[in-house]
Amino acid sequence: MNFDALFQTQIDALKEEGNYRYFAELERKCGKFPKAANHVDGEKRDVTVWCSNDYLGMGQNPLTIAAMCEAVQRTGTGAGGTRNISGTNHDHLLLEAELADLHGKEAALLFTSGYVSNWAALSCLGSRLENCVILSDAGNHASMIEGIRHSKAKKVIWKHNDVADLEAKLQALPANVPKIVAFESVYSMDGDICPMREIVEVAEKYGAMTYLDEVHAVGLYGPRGGGVSEREGLADRITLIEGTLGKAYGVVGGYITGSAALCDFIRSFASGFIFTTALPPAVAAAARASIMHLKTSRDERIRQRAQVKKLRDGLDRAGIPHMMNESHIVPVMIKDPVKTRMLADYLMDEWGIYVQPINYPTVPKGTERLRFTPSPLHSDEDIAHLLNALTHLWKQCAVSHAVA
Amino acid sequence: MNFDALFQTQIDALKEEGNYRYFAELERKCGKFPKAANHVDGEKRDVTVWCSNDYLGMGQNPLTIAAMCEAVQRTGTGAGGTRNISGTNHDHLLLEAELADLHGKEAALLFTSGYVSNWAALSCLGSRLENCVILSDAGNHASMIEGIRHSKAKKVIWKHNDVADLEAKLQALPANVPKIVAFESVYSMDGDICPMREIVEVAEKYGAMTYLDEVHAVGLYGPRGGGVSEREGLADRITLIEGTLGKAYGVVGGYITGSAALCDFIRSFASGFIFTTALPPAVAAAARASIMHLKTSRDERIRQRAQVKKLRDGLDRAGIPHMMNESHIVPVMIKDPVKTRMLADYLMDEWGIYVQPINYPTVPKGTERLRFTPSPLHSDEDIAHLLNALTHLWKQCAVSHAVA
Repeated sequence: MNFDALFQTQIDALKEEGNYRYFAELERKCGKFPKAANHVDGEKRDVTVWCSNDYLGMGQNPLTIAAMCEAVQRTGTGAGGTRNISGTNHDHLLLEAELADLHGKEAALLFTSGYVSNWAALSCLGSRLENCVILSDAGNHASMIEGIRHSKAKKVIWKHNDVADLEAKLQALPANVPKIVAFESVYSMDGDICPMREIVEVAEKYGAMTYLDEVHAVGLYGPRGGGVSEREGLADRITLIEGTLGKAYGVVGGYITGSAALCDFIRSFASGFIFTTALPPAVAAAARASIMHLKTSRDERIRQRAQVKKLRDGLDRAGIPHMMNESHIVPVMIKDPVKTRMLADYLMDEWGIYVQPINYPTVPKGTERLRFTPSPLHSDEDIAHLLNALTHLWKQCAVSHAVA
Repeated sequence: MNFDALFQTQIDALKEEGNYRYFAELERKCGKFPKAANHVDGEKRDVTVWCSNDYLGMGQNPLTIAAMCEAVQRTGTGAGGTRNISGTNHDHLLLEAELADLHGKEAALLFTSGYVSNWAALSCLGSRLENCVILSDAGNHASMIEGIRHSKAKKVIWKHNDVADLEAKLQALPANVPKIVAFESVYSMDGDICPMREIVEVAEKYGAMTYLDEVHAVGLYGPRGGGVSEREGLADRITLIEGTLGKAYGVVGGYITGSAALCDFIRSFASGFIFTTALPPAVAAAARASIMHLKTSRDERIRQRAQVKKLRDGLDRAGIPHMMNESHIVPVMIKDPVKTRMLADYLMDEWGIYVQPINYPTVPKGTERLRFTPSPLHSDEDIAHLLNALTHLWKQCAVSHAVA
């Protein structure tokens, strides 16, 4: 059987519909963020990155760099095993204590990624709590969807951010089955924020546990970077808060926080936690330094918000439609994969602006977009340059009619 | 509903049966491997680690440490996004080229862990190849099992390392359905090595693709560390070779290698590849340095084999039964979780020897064991000390009768 032909057929179909993905090859350069070198056809060119999830530039902060190098020199490059078999290092436990403190929880548990933390925790909860029903927001991330699916628990999808629909669905379930309400604070692609207080209240009313993904919020919201749940004073009413070390904190890895019993339960039973090599202690040390810094320093968050506002205001002045939300994510809808790529290519080639076209399966087909994430390190000149480029584009391009 | 009580009940059941896991808290110290500090009750004590998967001590090799620090200083602590959205760095592509070369394949694809590479690749293949049947060795790792389960493809389990059984099961399937034979080279807990040539031949006979997990073999077997498939001259006949950067290479991360079409297919469709932050470029740089070193240096492998042989010979002389295999893994069967923990605690407390008790779900219940992994950095004195400790134990303990 010709397997390559089977693979190629499906790849060709992606290309046909404009959804084939070309990765931009970058060279991050310390101290230069959001500038990077882009390798293309054997040449290098300088670009400004406008779509990074290193939201605050902490991945190039001297504090995180120093913490990582110090720990590499002290402990080496790897953990040496799974958490159970020789891989638990003192640095992991320091980080877990830091994370528990960040969210005001009894305990925390570290995973190799945010994806794995969602997948492993939800599949463990859904499969081991007898007759469990998971009520999942329709906008939830792939990692949560896959975790729920893998658990084989009964899944009920409620309309995105619609508390009335959630309540109707909770009400329809028997009182005595365990229920998990799974949702996010900031949704990454639309940048909208959930009505957290209402969700928590309705979950409490029906005795459901709450599972909150804060990956696009930790480090960014709340006085100490504890996320939207901290900002709203709701963290203590949420059963499980999940987050990442790979976005605002600038490193890599994921985690959950909650009661000691909850974390011990996931630690003891989740396949995706048990059967995998622990993160390098140096990654844990760098993440901890980043979290500690953002617990007290608010400069990065204040400056980020200012730059986000400048970009939004400029888009409004230029008459370029962008999706309204109260977060740091600025989506400009194009609604066609081929046009989105064309615009992105033009911005990169002609203006040195790198924004990845966002297409299926990251967003539903027909909602393709450019997604801008201004950071505290984007200068006013960077913003002016981007606005200039987009204004030119919108004026010149036939596309302007298509997206109007 | 009292969720903590539900969690606690299941944790208590684990404790009751002796399968609750206590992680040893270590401090790896550069240049000291296999020595480490063990934190216990607020004190630190020096121990010799006998159960690490940093099989060659590459996690503390000056080359990998230097490569990681250099890249952290150059690029920062994180990748800044998913591979698609600003996270592809030049260092990732260099590593993927290195991995493709290691296995003589057209292409390679990097994942956040070996677990994720198996889970994501198998669930993608199984779900997207129409009517696909996956023939899985009964001893396969949890990450493969979960990936196959998640794919919802038809699964056929063949008896561990039993080629006749595999052939019977291949023969029973229709000729025109895509078939994947999934297996490992070195099985981590028993240390046995598969009959690779026979498996490949029977797979070829029935037109099946082969999916080979080499995580406990890469860096360790074959003239360049390409694994058992390299040693046997079979790499070019295997469709997909999966490996890890977290064991012999001493860092973290996983990968697959294969044809360009295969890697592009997984890259384009696998949820666990797409929706997750890329590994830090510095992790990629360290792993690449480690792979390049072990492509030419054989000293580590030769010395490891010598130390493995010394331990086995010593166990034989002392009359301590150990599982025979041709790998670097030395399992001593205890067959009871409580006794295994008792022995491990005694070795740690009285002899400064750290070997984690291996229990369910890592091994089937009733096959609990101590699993020793001698490295090139274990001295002859370390081995003598371990043999001395075990000899004392076997003589003194009532357990000696239980395991005889």
